[in-house]
Order: sequence, then C-alpha cells, then structure tokens
Amino acid sequence: MRLRLTPRNESFFDLLAVTADQLVSGADALGRLVTAPAVERPALAATLREIEHAADESTHAIMRRLDTTFVTPFDRDDIYGLAAGLDDCMDHMEEAGDLIVLYRVDRLPELVTSQVDILQRSALLAAEAMPRLRTLKGLAEYWVETNRLENEADRIYRRLIADLFHGGTDAVEIMKLKDVITALEDAADAFEKVANLVETISLKES
Amino acid sequence: MRLRLTPRNESFFDLLAVTADQLVSGADALGRLVTAPAVERPALAATLREIEHAADESTHAIMRRLDTTFVTPFDRDDIYGLAAGLDDCMDHMEEAGDLIVLYRVDRLPELVTSQVDILQRSALLAAEAMPRLRTLKGLAEYWVETNRLENEADRIYRRLIADLFHGGTDAVEIMKLKDVITALEDAADAFEKVANLVETISLKES
Amino acid sequence: MRLRLTPRNESFFDLLAVTADQLVSGADALGRLVTAPAVERPALAATLREIEHAADESTHAIMRRLDTTFVTPFDRDDIYGLAAGLDDCMDHMEEAGDLIVLYRVDRLPELVTSQVDILQRSALLAAEAMPRLRTLKGLAEYWVETNRLENEADRIYRRLIADLFHGGTDAVEIMKLKDVITALEDAADAFEKVANLVETISLKES
Repeated sequence: MRLRLTPRNESFFDLLAVTADQLVSGADALGRLVTAPAVERPALAATLREIEHAADESTHAIMRRLDTTFVTPFDRDDIYGLAAGLDDCMDHMEEAGDLIVLYRVDRLPELVTSQVDILQRSALLAAEAMPRLRTLKGLAEYWVETNRLENEADRIYRRLIADLFHGGTDAVEIMKLKDVITALEDAADAFEKVANLVETISLKES
Repeated sequence: MRLRLTPRNESFFDLLAVTADQLVSGADALGRLVTAPAVERPALAATLREIEHAADESTHAIMRRLDTTFVTPFDRDDIYGLAAGLDDCMDHMEEAGDLIVLYRVDRLPELVTSQVDILQRSALLAAEAMPRLRTLKGLAEYWVETNRLENEADRIYRRLIADLFHGGTDAVEIMKLKDVITALEDAADAFEKVANLVETISLKES
Repeated sequence: MRLRLTPRNESFFDLLAVTADQLVSGADALGRLVTAPAVERPALAATLREIEHAADESTHAIMRRLDTTFVTPFDRDDIYGLAAGLDDCMDHMEEAGDLIVLYRVDRLPELVTSQVDILQRSALLAAEAMPRLRTLKGLAEYWVETNRLENEADRIYRRLIADLFHGGTDAVEIMKLKDVITALEDAADAFEKVANLVETISLKES
C-alpha cells in the first residue's frame, strides 16, 4: 500500500503576503488622511475603503482555499487566525478613517499622527514577516518589535485619552475623538495579535 | 468488517429554522416597540426579552445536539457558526429594544424605523433560507438580497450618525441614541454575517 | 500490535486552578481600588495590572501545553475556551480599574462596590470549581450560583445606568462612569460564560 500525500500548498504564504501588503497601503492612506486638510479627507477615506475591500477579497481567497485544501502547510486554524487577524488590522484602520469623515472631525490632536505612524511601521513589519512563514526563520525580530510598538501605542493612547478628558474639550467633541483614538488603538492591538500568533506558530511548528 | 455509519441527522435544519423563525418574531416585536408611545415600550421590551430567551434555548439545543452527534449533515463548525450567528442577530435586536427603555429615550429619529424595517426583512429572508440548507438549493437570492439590505442599512446608519452629531442634539441624548442606532446596525451586520456563512457553506458543500 | 496511549495530562486542571486563583487576587485588588481614596488608586491599579500580567502568563502556559499535548483530559476546544474565558474575566476587571485611574474618576456611585462584590464572589466560585473539573463532580452549585450572581449584577448594572442618565450628571462624567460600569458588567458576564462552559463540559463528558 502506498500512502499518497497531497503536496503542501505553498501559496497560502503568497496570499497572506498580499494581504499584509494591502495593510501597508491602507496605513499609508490613513497617514495621508490624518494630515490632510478636512476638505480632502472624504476622498482619502474613499481610497482607504477601496483598499479595505481589496483586502477583504484577499482574506476570502485564503478562506476559500482553506476550505478546499486538504493538507495545509501548518495548522489550518492558525492560517485562518492569521487571515482573520490581518483583516482585523485593516478593519480598525478603515474604521478610524471613516469616523474622522463621518463625524466631520475638524482638528485632530497632534498625537494621532504618532498613533498612525506606529500603524505604518507595524504594517511594514507584518508585510516583511509573512513571506518568512515559509521557512519560519528570522521572525523573532518581527514579533519583538511589533510588541514594542504596541506598548508605545498604548502609552500614546493613554496620554491622548487623559488629555481629552482633562483639557476642557466639549462633551460631543470628546465622544467623537474618543471613538477615533480607540479605533487606532484597536488597530495597534490587532497588529500585536497577529505577531503573537506568528510567535505561537513558530514555537509550535519548529 | 462492517463500517457502521450513524445516519446524518437532518434535524439540525429544523432547529436552525426554529431559531430563524424566532428572529422574525423578535424583529416584529422590535418594530412595534420603536413605533409605540414611550409608555407602552417597557411591556414590548419584556416581550422581546422573552423571545430572546426562547431563541437562546433553541441555540443551546443546537449546541447540545452538536456535542452528542457524531456525523453532522455538514461541517460541525459551520453549524455551530450558523447557530451562534443567528443568536447574535437576536442579541443585538434585544439590546436595541432594551436600551430604548433603559435610557428612557423619548423621541427616536424617524430613520430608526427604516433600520428596523430592514431587520424585519432580513429575518424573513433568513427564516426562508434555513430549511433550504437541506438541499443547498435556491439560496443565492438569500445572500445576495441580505447583502443588499445590509448596504442599505449601512447608508441609513451613516445618515443617522451624521444627523445626530450635526443637528444640535444635546450630548447626553447623542450618547443614548448613538448606542441604540449602533445596536440596530450591529443587528443588520449580524444578519449579513449569517448570509455570508450560508454562501461559504453552499460553495464548500456543493 | 499494542496501542500505546499517552496518559491523560492532568495538569491542565492545575493550570486552570492557578488562573482562577489569580482572578480571586484580581477581584480583591479591584475591591480595594474602588473603596480607596482617589490618591491611592494609581498604585492599586498597578497591582491589578501585575496580577493581570501574571494571569496572562498562566493563560499562555495553558495554550502552549495544549499545542504540545496530543491527548487532552477533555475536548481540546473546551480547555481552550476555559482558559480564554478566565482571561476575559481578568481583562474586564483590569480594564475597569484602569479606566477609573485613567479617567481620574473622583466619586464612584455607591452601587459600584456591589458590582465588585459580585465579581469577588464569582472569582471565589470559579477558583473552587476548577479543581473539580478533574472528577466533574460537585459542579452544579458553581454554575447555578454564578448564574444567580450574574442576574444580580445585571439588575445592579441597569439601576446604575438608569441613575446615571437621569440623575442630572454632567455629560462627560456620564461617559466616564458608563465605561467603568460597563467594564464591571462585562466582567460579570465573562464569569457567567465560564460557568456556562463548565456546565456544557459536564453534560458532554459525563
């Protein structure tokens, strides 16, 4: 009797890398949005939404392939988790951009650009890491640095919230900015969650 | 040697259909609640809560059966996902009705009735779709139409939020209405999620 | 041919018990925090955060063991669910303590201490229950009592929200207190979820 093995399907790595590249584009669009004059923001939010739709397609492509592939390069649930995790990063970034426009936020606190800067760096790290899943080599720096960035994001978030509630800002403005700042913090958390999952996978599979 | 196969247990479809029928009742109670005078709302919210409890029982019945059934008509996780998804629809509808009463919201924006109207139509579509899971036939219209409804819900939601923040409404009132409107939008999203899962199942199993 | 069976790894019960004990410490620190004068709260929030970090470590230890253990004492997903569920309890408690300090809440409504009292009792019940998972005996009281406590928490929560919105409180203060009260209610819900999962496991495994 011969055991027939389906070859491990490598293209999951390509699909995850495509999704992570879209996060880089998304973080870039978000960066332009938060620094642009209010009048130019709706167009940039529309760009961000298009990128989010494209990333959604990539995520669905991964899920579909998972459903139709018998042998996966590593634990099926982990690939699912990575795809869902990257999707979360994009969703929170898109939400932040969308809220800025929907709420017609005029002046954003300066530290918001630091939040977005961290997201841009987190996205780049994720995009560099995804192709390395193939060999599971050279990934430690990715999760260490992403965790460091998330800690920095957390400090900035706390500073922003404290300033917001104790700077004499009007209640309605607080409500709006709190939602925007929180969506950006949720995005940083989502990037960390992906990095932690990559760490778990690395420990498990190697 | 004889391989003994447990017959595929068809009654998952019946149980899912029962839960979806409860969503129709729930959406109906919610519809009466949002159009009723404030004084009649607590009784209607209590009705909605009873329906939610009944749906909870149905969901648990599905979960219990999943735990005790060896062979399921399709992927165990997908049945779990459908049951959990229908449960989410009910939870968000119940939450919306509950918040209206808890916050003692007096005047609801007119567009809220359009949000609830979409939920009623989404519930009807889901209730029609569940029995068709047996043959996986005639389901495309369900997910296409539910997605269309969710897009409509999204437009209404955005319009409501924009009006809320820019109509000179008092801050405390904004807080209350934002929570209600968001719970209704979350319900529409939850219906879409169930429809998307049905689409995934259809593609996978057929 | 002899079938070699890996012995059921009992230490999952020990690890879950450790995590539940940490919840008892966390709920205790939270209790001291909500009754302490505002000036002493930052130090108590820091203590709570340390306990939360330690619980996080325990949770990760369980996950890692799950990843490296072939035969688990009961359904792998259920152990995962218990660990994640206990982690949620801690996260919401830590969040509540953190928000009180971050928002510089001065006066907490008196009923908040009743919310925390319920969390302390729920944590004790969970800590007593975890070692009993080994035999799955004597657990019914745990889930019945935890559900009763959650119902009580729910009534207190609703009373707090109603008072908050109708007691002439300033909008910004409402925003702050609503987040704190909701984090405490989310913690009570999280304890109930763990108890419900224990009920499910008991029915399934016995």
